[in-house]
Amino acid sequence: MRTCLAALALAWLPTPAVAETLIDNVDGLTLTANGDVQRFNAIIIGDDGRVEQLLRPGDRRPDRPDFRKDGRGQVLMPGLIDAHGHVMGLGFQLMTLDLSQTRSLAEAQEAIRAYAAANPELPWIIGRGWNQESWALGRFPTAADIDAVVADKPVWLERVDGHAGWANSAAMRAASITASTRSPSGGRIETVGGRPSGIFVDAASDLIARHVPQPLARDRDRALALAQQRLLESGITTVADMGTSMEDWQAFRRAGDGGRLNVRIISYAAGTDAMALIAGPGPTPWLYEDRLRMVGVKLVLDGALGSRGAWLKAPYSDAPTITGLPMLSQSQLRNFMVRATMDGFQVAVHAIGDAANGELLAAIDDVAASFPGDRRWRIEHAQIVDLPDIARFGQHGIIASMQPVHQTSDRLMAEARLGPDRLGGAYAWRTIAGTGSRLAFGSDFPVESPDPFAGLATAFTREDAQGQPFGGWRPEEAVNRIAALDGFTRSAAYAGFAEDRIGTLMPGMRADFILLDKDVTLASPSDVRGARVAETWVGGRPVWVRSGTNDASTGDPRESL
Amino acid sequence: MRTCLAALALAWLPTPAVAETLIDNVDGLTLTANGDVQRFNAIIIGDDGRVEQLLRPGDRRPDRPDFRKDGRGQVLMPGLIDAHGHVMGLGFQLMTLDLSQTRSLAEAQEAIRAYAAANPELPWIIGRGWNQESWALGRFPTAADIDAVVADKPVWLERVDGHAGWANSAAMRAASITASTRSPSGGRIETVGGRPSGIFVDAASDLIARHVPQPLARDRDRALALAQQRLLESGITTVADMGTSMEDWQAFRRAGDGGRLNVRIISYAAGTDAMALIAGPGPTPWLYEDRLRMVGVKLVLDGALGSRGAWLKAPYSDAPTITGLPMLSQSQLRNFMVRATMDGFQVAVHAIGDAANGELLAAIDDVAASFPGDRRWRIEHAQIVDLPDIARFGQHGIIASMQPVHQTSDRLMAEARLGPDRLGGAYAWRTIAGTGSRLAFGSDFPVESPDPFAGLATAFTREDAQGQPFGGWRPEEAVNRIAALDGFTRSAAYAGFAEDRIGTLMPGMRADFILLDKDVTLASPSDVRGARVAETWVGGRPVWVRSGTNDASTGDPRESL
Repeated sequence: MRTCLAALALAWLPTPAVAETLIDNVDGLTLTANGDVQRFNAIIIGDDGRVEQLLRPGDRRPDRPDFRKDGRGQVLMPGLIDAHGHVMGLGFQLMTLDLSQTRSLAEAQEAIRAYAAANPELPWIIGRGWNQESWALGRFPTAADIDAVVADKPVWLERVDGHAGWANSAAMRAASITASTRSPSGGRIETVGGRPSGIFVDAASDLIARHVPQPLARDRDRALALAQQRLLESGITTVADMGTSMEDWQAFRRAGDGGRLNVRIISYAAGTDAMALIAGPGPTPWLYEDRLRMVGVKLVLDGALGSRGAWLKAPYSDAPTITGLPMLSQSQLRNFMVRATMDGFQVAVHAIGDAANGELLAAIDDVAASFPGDRRWRIEHAQIVDLPDIARFGQHGIIASMQPVHQTSDRLMAEARLGPDRLGGAYAWRTIAGTGSRLAFGSDFPVESPDPFAGLATAFTREDAQGQPFGGWRPEEAVNRIAALDGFTRSAAYAGFAEDRIGTLMPGMRADFILLDKDVTLASPSDVRGARVAETWVGGRPVWVRSGTNDASTGDPRESL
Repeated sequence: MRTCLAALALAWLPTPAVAETLIDNVDGLTLTANGDVQRFNAIIIGDDGRVEQLLRPGDRRPDRPDFRKDGRGQVLMPGLIDAHGHVMGLGFQLMTLDLSQTRSLAEAQEAIRAYAAANPELPWIIGRGWNQESWALGRFPTAADIDAVVADKPVWLERVDGHAGWANSAAMRAASITASTRSPSGGRIETVGGRPSGIFVDAASDLIARHVPQPLARDRDRALALAQQRLLESGITTVADMGTSMEDWQAFRRAGDGGRLNVRIISYAAGTDAMALIAGPGPTPWLYEDRLRMVGVKLVLDGALGSRGAWLKAPYSDAPTITGLPMLSQSQLRNFMVRATMDGFQVAVHAIGDAANGELLAAIDDVAASFPGDRRWRIEHAQIVDLPDIARFGQHGIIASMQPVHQTSDRLMAEARLGPDRLGGAYAWRTIAGTGSRLAFGSDFPVESPDPFAGLATAFTREDAQGQPFGGWRPEEAVNRIAALDGFTRSAAYAGFAEDRIGTLMPGMRADFILLDKDVTLASPSDVRGARVAETWVGGRPVWVRSGTNDASTGDPRESL
């Protein structure tokens, strides 16, 4: 069960002066600017929310700090940075009903009923994750099964695999579905007794889905609040938002304007049109005391392996007529890259297949010739790279923005899609790092959980949460613990042009840190995965505190706000 | 010739502490919270940029203010508030070539050449205001006339009346205009020797106009800077922006984020979609130390008198088959009003004709029944009101947002459009004020000049800049000088829910004021029109100073920034 969040309501307010804070008796660690580990056992935070000093046991403590906290021996480390996530996507996922843990139709019905009762303001009930196989139902569920618990408003629930949706009668009425509605090409309306049953397969799903109301601004605000809560409790203090829309940006700004933006967001616009509309003639300044900046643009060059949309040089091993397709032509890719770069925006491009990575590396080579300098070209995912291409990651200051947990989630599928002979450059963290390319780590939430401890443990083990495969999948591509930590802190900051303010706890940096029960540089992989964050601080102020934390500080930490 | 602007580059920066400022030896006046005139001869501004104290001759001065300025007997009065303008429209107007003062084709050609040379970065040269009649040319000008001075880029120049446009050959090429291009319905392509001459009449103008590039973000930023400069030099410190688009808003925010927003903007979104996208679930907070807020929505119910788009109860006197038309149905108007009101947005509706005003008054009556409270329904323009409807302005706290100069610009046309028997409720400032409705004054810039002194003089004389007609047009509708000043200060602030922070110089209000050479409560109408602003201060800091001002202050005013 999720713990209650005692301090989440603590708002950030742009008060000009906060007090000097001492947190003593901690097992502190950070990377230094050049990537070494530095340990300390007390930290002094200035009234500007920046780290003032790291103290070792014998160092003199300030006589009268405005706020003193006893860390009780807990580990204190930099807040983690997720270099690739989707903030609003996470929030909206948290706002929908999750049926993935239900073990029977009856359990699902009870979950639907309870969720609708708990959320009376929702015009539609939206959910996902059901699987009639795991219910041993022997049939698809029907509209009547939902009507029995929620009949007064539309309900629309996506199957666990995304390939079917389950509607109640109100949803079908809202979509004007009748017995005479024909299945669209590529889809199927299931029927019972000649009438639509409530199950819409593949392309038929859109018959219902397109009637689901677009979220209102207040829904977006709630989604952002929920996403921040989830991130802060996971120990994440900064995210790179990969594909910010105008609506997303306005939600970020409302939170900033209202003092409710606690997670730092480094934003990459969803395409060059959004980039120009949101940021204008160049990257925005850092806003809200370094809590928000649009620094670049996110482009998408291909799809994903699972749906065989990733663009490969040779056909899929399990679909020999298909290679996937680029989503941008050669000239489109270069034009968008130039459009962004000439106005000083950073470019981040999604590339999963080896053809996509090869083409992107060539495009970077082309564009960098006209736009030299510190551009930090980002390749997002870089999952499958042809071995002869890998060395090119070391050129032009390319950043490989990779998501360790994707490797464990995807490995069996990747083996099927690619066959045994194309795995040499798959999720090749260590080899890519060896070219001189900087590794920035993330989770791609909400595709994966934002939990950075799972990412850290995976990065240095190549094992999943169950320890499989024992010894790691292609373990030669694991990185060491310090490199794993670097990918989630210092290099993730660098990847967003933010290394001058976040990513380490060296003096002068924003005091973004977490207190927790495990030292990720020493604990066993399973202990790293089980690490419990007790407090998350951003800008020298606590923005999330685990409920029930027995605080031994003098004074009220809120006074330091 | 326009004077150079010495202090425009002074940026506003959100420094937490500015110093205490004393401006002594001024002929100060302000309205009080309840509308009385208060005079003073020194003002103390606190370090928060708010008025701390107004001093009379015998009052004790602070011993050591951080900054002291000798006002040298100048008049000091509140910065003027334009309750209805179009900020970006003004800026874009200032970025185009003005040919209205040219007296020959040769002069126009020289102006075009010089403008193109001075603005090499512009992809198109855009201008307006030419009139071949005043050049005594005896023919329309041609594309060749422009090609002779600018051939390498498109040039597109609107005639003074807006009913024709003049293109060069490059513009025609960009628009793919050839000898075989046919004139559209409602328009005419002029020809010479069977080929397009370069003149496009009425609906044909769009053949070229639709190829003019949309402004880039940097163009918008420049437009906003130019608009601010023009407003500040005119003595205007706050405007209500009537019809803010997403692009406009982003320009305002860029200026705010960058410390370049000096004019306060009270924003009304261009329709409810823009409102929801920009502000979200309700009006924004005041941003940038009260320099920007979206408080409501602008709707447009009818057109204008000149084009006979204003919606009248009876046909136009000079076009007996036409009454104009509403641009929103009864239910659309009410739905949009409800949509905004239920989320707490203020509603401002353009209504010019008597049918539009009558319908809007009825709609306010309907909507106010469900949404009581302090809504400050705004009727924009309220130019022609049927006498039996006027009393309804006194209900529901309606604000009449009127533009004095429109009356002098329109009077001959209004007489033609309406005939002698429908003028009783035309531009009826005094009668409307007499119902208890609050008058907020503005200029509708760039339709009229933003000059508020022309507006003030017109408001209490009903005469134009030439003193015509002597004694005023329907002079019984003039207001007195104090009411005129009120309409451009205190009531204009009230009309934007801003009376708690701007509009007067009473202690606690933002110190927005101007130094000038005339007392508008005493000077002759022509002296009021000729008033010269020497300095404009916003938030207790000088943001515009006329070049050549011989300052007698001690210390550098910038030190108080």
